Amino acid sequence: MDREKAASDRFACTERERCIFETGIKLATIYHQYVGTPFNRKSVSSLEEAISRSIEVQPYVVSAKVSIDRSVIPDDVDEYSYLSLTGDMIDAVVKVSMGSTTVTAEMRYDDELRYPLMFVSKIE
Amino acid sequence: MDREKAASDRFACTERERCIFETGIKLATIYHQYVGTPFNRKSVSSLEEAISRSIEVQPYVVSAKVSIDRSVIPDDVDEYSYLSLTGDMIDAVVKVSMGSTTVTAEMRYDDELRYPLMFVSKIE
Amino acid sequence: MDREKAASDRFACTERERCIFETGIKLATIYHQYVGTPFNRKSVSSLEEAISRSIEVQPYVVSAKVSIDRSVIPDDVDEYSYLSLTGDMIDAVVKVSMGSTTVTAEMRYDDELRYPLMFVSKIE
Amino acid sequence: MDREKAASDRFACTERERCIFETGIKLATIYHQYVGTPFNRKSVSSLEEAISRSIEVQPYVVSAKVSIDRSVIPDDVDEYSYLSLTGDMIDAVVKVSMGSTTVTAEMRYDDELRYPLMFVSKIE
Repeated sequence: MDREKAASDRFACTERERCIFETGIKLATIYHQYVGTPFNRKSVSSLEEAISRSIEVQPYVVSAKVSIDRSVIPDDVDEYSYLSLTGDMIDAVVKVSMGSTTVTAEMRYDDELRYPLMFVSKIE
Repeated sequence: MDREKAASDRFACTERERCIFETGIKLATIYHQYVGTPFNRKSVSSLEEAISRSIEVQPYVVSAKVSIDRSVIPDDVDEYSYLSLTGDMIDAVVKVSMGSTTVTAEMRYDDELRYPLMFVSKIE
Repeated sequence: MDREKAASDRFACTERERCIFETGIKLATIYHQYVGTPFNRKSVSSLEEAISRSIEVQPYVVSAKVSIDRSVIPDDVDEYSYLSLTGDMIDAVVKVSMGSTTVTAEMRYDDELRYPLMFVSKIE
Repeated sequence: MDREKAASDRFACTERERCIFETGIKLATIYHQYVGTPFNRKSVSSLEEAISRSIEVQPYVVSAKVSIDRSVIPDDVDEYSYLSLTGDMIDAVVKVSMGSTTVTAEMRYDDELRYPLMFVSKIE
């Protein structure tokens, strides 16, 4: 069975529109799966890597780059010197490609909005 | 400050396309925030209600209807008679509206795909 | 099959100690399942209720009271007037009972520690 | 300020009992933070590593070993060839040490219980 064809038949929109839809899914996956995860200065790279890879296994994802703000991580002075991940600390760029369309969407704390905004930054 | 205008300026796409993007965010929020939640026959309505309402507080959401499959819930016979929510048990319909566009997107276990598919079902 | 007896046989500790262990599980469930959930002034009660009930369905739980700090919720002025739940906003009291032991454990933001501490507050 | 001393003062139990409580917290963190995470055959090691490390940054943890059942991962044949993590796939062993006590607790799918049981397996 061709699952990609079958899935495609469920959509009441163009391929370009579906590609945009998929980027929204991916950014919210990053936020709602990982917010709350404990990390510190030593484990932050392993967390970034795991987030990126868990997004890249999903359908039609070309790449997912995730950076966590290191400036807020406390020094390792006692047992409580670690953080829980919040949306404000995440900077993510996800590219999804279907047919001839590639959509780039980003999540980034927006200083003006005071909000970790998810937005479509490029369609090619 | 007009945060809605400021947010809008970050998008490199049409309002219709942004509306589609927002529905993707909402469906993935349902999945990745709530999968793993313990529930039983008595608490399932309260969980559905909380999921719906947490989606409806988000930007531009008109409605979010969530049903959890009751057929898989075990009878209450011992301390272990409850379930953890999985994606396969969720049926969700989310409507997002911006300007003159309303997009309906759904998440539903697809028997043919054997996969809880998220898809755009209507654009008006 | 007696699943409660079978589960009990897996534990290399006393019933009192197991009861303490179970309270740790319940508090971390609250934190890691729900941190990141969107809510506003209107939906906060429904979220508290769903959290409490999802804990109460779990083995040996007598009660789970959850309060979310309303003082940090912004007024409803635009589409972005909502919050994502963080550990600092949660105040929880969980009671677990096995045999003749009841253990009360709590999670609460501790001003001195600047940390949402989970602790055992009473054993009876 | 001595946060370790201050935290300790909040507990109405012995150090040994607190140590048991902390292992319950850690196992539930694994379950409720990560259940729902997408992974495939290529990314599974990176996910195991990230889970282990996020537990090891938490207070008083000596080690956290996490294995995800590879036997259920589908072959990579199409865009939908990946899984979402469930509790049944996780095998975890966490050691927490305070003063002279070390507690080992485990989470493992129990065939007899048909349930991913968390239990205390050793106190030394």
